[in-house]
Amino acid sequence: MHQDVEPRVFSGIQPTGIPHLGNYLGALQSWVHLQEQYNTVLYSIADLHSITVPQDPSTLRASILDMAACLLACGINPAKSCIFQQSQVAEHAELAWILNCLTSMPRLRHLPQWKVKCQTQKNEGSAGLFTYPVLQAADILLYKSTHVPVGDDQVQHLELTQDTARLFNRIYGDFFPIPRGIMGTSKKIYSLRDPSSKMSKSDPQKLATVRLTDSPEEIVLKFRKAVTDFTSEVTYDPERRPGVSSLVAIHSAVTGLGTDIIVQQSRGMDTAQYKLTVADAVIQKLCPIREEMQRLQREQGYLREVLYQGAQRAKEMAAPVYDSVARLVGFR
Amino acid sequence: MHQDVEPRVFSGIQPTGIPHLGNYLGALQSWVHLQEQYNTVLYSIADLHSITVPQDPSTLRASILDMAACLLACGINPAKSCIFQQSQVAEHAELAWILNCLTSMPRLRHLPQWKVKCQTQKNEGSAGLFTYPVLQAADILLYKSTHVPVGDDQVQHLELTQDTARLFNRIYGDFFPIPRGIMGTSKKIYSLRDPSSKMSKSDPQKLATVRLTDSPEEIVLKFRKAVTDFTSEVTYDPERRPGVSSLVAIHSAVTGLGTDIIVQQSRGMDTAQYKLTVADAVIQKLCPIREEMQRLQREQGYLREVLYQGAQRAKEMAAPVYDSVARLVGFR
Repeated sequence: MHQDVEPRVFSGIQPTGIPHLGNYLGALQSWVHLQEQYNTVLYSIADLHSITVPQDPSTLRASILDMAACLLACGINPAKSCIFQQSQVAEHAELAWILNCLTSMPRLRHLPQWKVKCQTQKNEGSAGLFTYPVLQAADILLYKSTHVPVGDDQVQHLELTQDTARLFNRIYGDFFPIPRGIMGTSKKIYSLRDPSSKMSKSDPQKLATVRLTDSPEEIVLKFRKAVTDFTSEVTYDPERRPGVSSLVAIHSAVTGLGTDIIVQQSRGMDTAQYKLTVADAVIQKLCPIREEMQRLQREQGYLREVLYQGAQRAKEMAAPVYDSVARLVGFR
Repeated sequence: MHQDVEPRVFSGIQPTGIPHLGNYLGALQSWVHLQEQYNTVLYSIADLHSITVPQDPSTLRASILDMAACLLACGINPAKSCIFQQSQVAEHAELAWILNCLTSMPRLRHLPQWKVKCQTQKNEGSAGLFTYPVLQAADILLYKSTHVPVGDDQVQHLELTQDTARLFNRIYGDFFPIPRGIMGTSKKIYSLRDPSSKMSKSDPQKLATVRLTDSPEEIVLKFRKAVTDFTSEVTYDPERRPGVSSLVAIHSAVTGLGTDIIVQQSRGMDTAQYKLTVADAVIQKLCPIREEMQRLQREQGYLREVLYQGAQRAKEMAAPVYDSVARLVGFR
């Protein structure tokens, strides 16, 4: 089924705060590679998703342009990838409504993000937070996407998208390709203060998270303070030595070298010395991105133009798909 | 607050099946009066709402045009009222998403429609059925509507809309007028087979419901078989004599005469004779509508043009409101 469908890659990122090293190594770096491997690649700045938890409007407005600057600075090329702001393409919300009508309540209630996120919200969260996996399904299916880069924690959401596509096809006839996850492209990066939890934008410990906009001095400080154990040797053993192994993993991810080579090269260093080596490798990787991002942040007109053009291209792809869906459902 | 806001009336009807006498006397007849009383009146054919329960696509497609024909035949004048198909105005779904993010889950769970409707659905219904009161709030607020004709059973939904408008205004600054219900304009009409339950499109008993497209013969048959009691006199006493009182209420509604005058005029008749009198009055009222509807159903091009023009006018009103909302939220 759909063997001859044109491959289309879709992914999205919320415009909330500055991406960190985990976002970069976990997603953005692979997005850059995907634009070389596929003809049609869409990256959405998911502002509709961001309001599932309260946002300050002026911060959100600025963050949307910051995220555009960040994506470009990371190497997303708007000539190859369609970068766009989700709310500029009305069909996302329109298709989400139709898919809402196909999605059972228990199915949503059992998704992990709802269980986790609603604990952090007063009054167990909004209907937007509850139904956002359906909007995510709409995001993907609106472009008849065939491939979706996913992290481990998003597998169940991709399954919802796949199930929704299958259900739609069963009711209305074969229409959506079943999108497949592109797994294993993303590296899981851990908090520098607690190597058992993922690096996170919202970590209250400021030293836990390396942001793409951190200065070299901040990066050095954060790695110097990184939690390791009392053995000074550099080894890669995530089970028994999560702290230093997390540093080796970051080092490996930013240099592209295997963890075994990293360990071999670091023989004789103590962990204090090694932390500075990792910090230096991270600085080598992030500083050009940071500088380019700062340059682009001054080019607000250009960023708006990139998003405008991206939205036009996204609409060109979305409109015929939504039109067909509306016809199949009986609206047209 | 909003004292000087231009009054705008909004209401909607689902394009599912032929409206019945209860819909006509309960809503459509007052819609015709409202277009004389207010400058800006919008009537939406709520196709997005209709898919909260499964619909056959080709039936739905036909029902949308049938509903347009029905509204026109009832006397809605497209030069005075904006009649449009909800799904043709993308901003309904877009605003619904934003309002979803402001609506708490427990608030929706306690609405009566969800409790009633989900009992009739396998697997307790879809996320669309659960969140449709939020779409209804978006329908109303998208036009900064100030007045909404409501039946008794919709009061809680209007309250959700009012609360949502207040919450939005509290967070983002005074923006939406708080829409007021136009109460008491609608008459509650009961099933001819069971005077304790409302007349309903989906009543399994065919003789219970008088449709606007029923022939005079069908109307006579349904009234002849109407459930009354063993007293043959015509009185108006809804508590003790619900069957015959329901007939008096219908008679009163279609003629515009008070129930006391009706009872007076019917003195000396037995209920069998009276049923034929009521049937005749209903035929007088409905037959011109039925004939006009049949004529319009043959004018598919005209109906499509009315809906197209209506959608254009609705969009002209919706677009600036949604644009302001998107700016306030921080999307623009």
